[in-house]
Order: sequence, then structure tokens, then C-alpha cells
Amino acid sequence: MTLNFPNKKAHVKNAANKANLGMALEQIINDSNEYYLANDIAIIHKKPTPIQIVKVDYPMRSKAVITEAYYKTPSTTDYNGIYRGKYIDFEAKENHNKTAFPLKNIHPHQIEHLKNIIKHGGIGFIIVSWNLYNEYYLLPFEVAYEYWNNSIEDGRKSIPYDAFKKRAFLIEESYLPRLKYLKVVDEVYFK
Amino acid sequence: MTLNFPNKKAHVKNAANKANLGMALEQIINDSNEYYLANDIAIIHKKPTPIQIVKVDYPMRSKAVITEAYYKTPSTTDYNGIYRGKYIDFEAKENHNKTAFPLKNIHPHQIEHLKNIIKHGGIGFIIVSWNLYNEYYLLPFEVAYEYWNNSIEDGRKSIPYDAFKKRAFLIEESYLPRLKYLKVVDEVYFK
Repeated sequence: MTLNFPNKKAHVKNAANKANLGMALEQIINDSNEYYLANDIAIIHKKPTPIQIVKVDYPMRSKAVITEAYYKTPSTTDYNGIYRGKYIDFEAKENHNKTAFPLKNIHPHQIEHLKNIIKHGGIGFIIVSWNLYNEYYLLPFEVAYEYWNNSIEDGRKSIPYDAFKKRAFLIEESYLPRLKYLKVVDEVYFK
Repeated sequence: MTLNFPNKKAHVKNAANKANLGMALEQIINDSNEYYLANDIAIIHKKPTPIQIVKVDYPMRSKAVITEAYYKTPSTTDYNGIYRGKYIDFEAKENHNKTAFPLKNIHPHQIEHLKNIIKHGGIGFIIVSWNLYNEYYLLPFEVAYEYWNNSIEDGRKSIPYDAFKKRAFLIEESYLPRLKYLKVVDEVYFK
């Protein structure tokens, strides 16, 4: 799969690295999870978006229609499941910035949740897409948490791109699965 | 906590056993999970109901309103999380029948999902409330699956109450948590 891309600069590594260009991160991860499930590698699902339902109509001879509802703030992360017998839990975030990933992208209760997961023996991380560079990183929760804690002291409200280069793990793209993030999980958590 | 109950018959064991009388099973489990979370015992959440959103309005100066949406069939179970370092996954079902739990209460893809979870090293079961008896049982997935498989051959489309007495595990009710289901998990899966 090759793609023509108008602006080939520093971060373009190879054609495979651009396979998912323009696709929403959520779709890319969902597709990868479908592949992992179908191949009996892992069972990881996206949790449905939490909705506060206010009004429901029941028209005759047809199914219930929700006619008034609101988005709720999620109390946990987007994804969880089981891999190699371990509980796995992560959040996925797109980043459109050039030099840093703003911490405001992550809700405080998601930080609390992931911290708790790790304490209980689970695997927790954040997948961040750097959309300008078409790069995907697995950011271990511990690293995110360090920046989160420091932000309270030093006022820095983001994680620099450099920190991703040094302390996060680039996820390889491919055709199947689109995002080989469990390969990175193998390297980071099972070695 | 004592309750007056008009029809004290065979299945009334003690007052504590009726603490949750009339409450929806989902609420009872959610309350229990809140207790388990607050006391750092387990991290188990109900997944939001999956909704297909068709139309969203964005009124000025107020938040987005979903004005047309439909319920979707869930592809997994209601609850999952981590307990004692293990992945845990279960479905919760109310049963209003007197002598049997109809298997049609469980979707085929939920059976498939739980089967898969166990294969991958997780803990999987179904919590069934027998509303007429005010009893709650942890039904190991393996037992449910046996009946599910047999139903294809012998046409029996339910699990008899007797089978619950013999092969499922009565869950103790209390004030905190409302349903001590992790105590049963300890006995069934950690001994």
C-alpha cells in the first residue's frame, strides 16, 4: 500500500508508516482489536460512549427511539480487555499539536483510574497519535503520571514531543493489524 | 436493617437476605462495585449501554443534544475489570420465573465472549437474580455453557432452579457491599 503525500518531511519513514493516514485513531484501534480478536490474540473492546438518556419514544410496530439524550463524561478509559492472561486498560488520544501533548486531553478521573489499575496488577498506558507526523506512540502510564504530577508543581501543562521520542514507544503500522500496539506491549510489559 | 414482608415462605432465610428487595439487580451490583472500588478491593465497572447515535443538535450556548438514537445489541457483557490481579468479566440477569432461568436471556455473542475470556485466562460468570425468591447466584460460565450446548441437542431452553441450588453459588447480601459477590469469587476461583 503506497500513498502519495504532498509534504514529505523529516518524520516520513516509509510507506507502511503512512498506511493509516487520515483515519481516526479510534477506527484504527478498533480495526486492530478486531484483528487481534479474530486471530485469538487478545480480547480488547472499546467501551461504548456513556450517554444520559432523558426521553425515549416507543412508536407502534417499530423499535424504541431515543429522542433526548446527552453525552456524559466517561469515568474510565476507552479500552480494556485481556491479553496474555493480563488485564489491559488504555486511553487513546489524538494530538494535533507540533511540539507537545497537552495534559488537558486526559481527565483527572482517567489518571486516577489508570493509576489504580496498575496498583491492582494491570497494564495501563495511553496511545497518542501525533497527527502532524503520522506517528503513534504507546506512552506508559508511569511517564504520563510523572508529567501530570510535575504539572502541579512546575506549571508545565504538556508532555513535549522529545519526551515521546525518549520515553514512549513508537508503534509500527501495518496492514493487519493497522496498529501493532500489542507488539509494543510485549516489549514493554512482558520482557 | 429489617423489612416487613407480607409473604414469608420457604426461601426467606434472614433479614439480611432481603436487604435489596425490590432494587434492580444492576443498581445493586453498581453499588457493590462502588464499595469495592472505594475500599481498594477491585476495579469493576458497568459498561455503558451501546447507543447508535443518528442526530445531534448543537444549540447555541448549551451542550450538544442527541435527538435521534437507538439501542444497539451489546457485543460483550455488562461488567468487567480487575480483581486480585486477574481479569474478571460477567453478565448480570434478572430472572422472574419460578422454576427455570431461560437461556434466551443470554445473547449468543455473550456466550462466545465469555467462552473466549476463559480461554484467555480470565474469570467469567453470570450473576442471576431469582426475583421471586430474592436470591442471587453466581453461575460459573462453564455450567451455563454446558446447558447452552445441551439445549442445541435436547431442546431444553433453560437452566432449572435445582441446577442453581446444586451447581451455582448463592451470594450473600449485606449492607456494604449490597452483594458480596467477590467473596464467592474468592471461594470459586481462588482456592
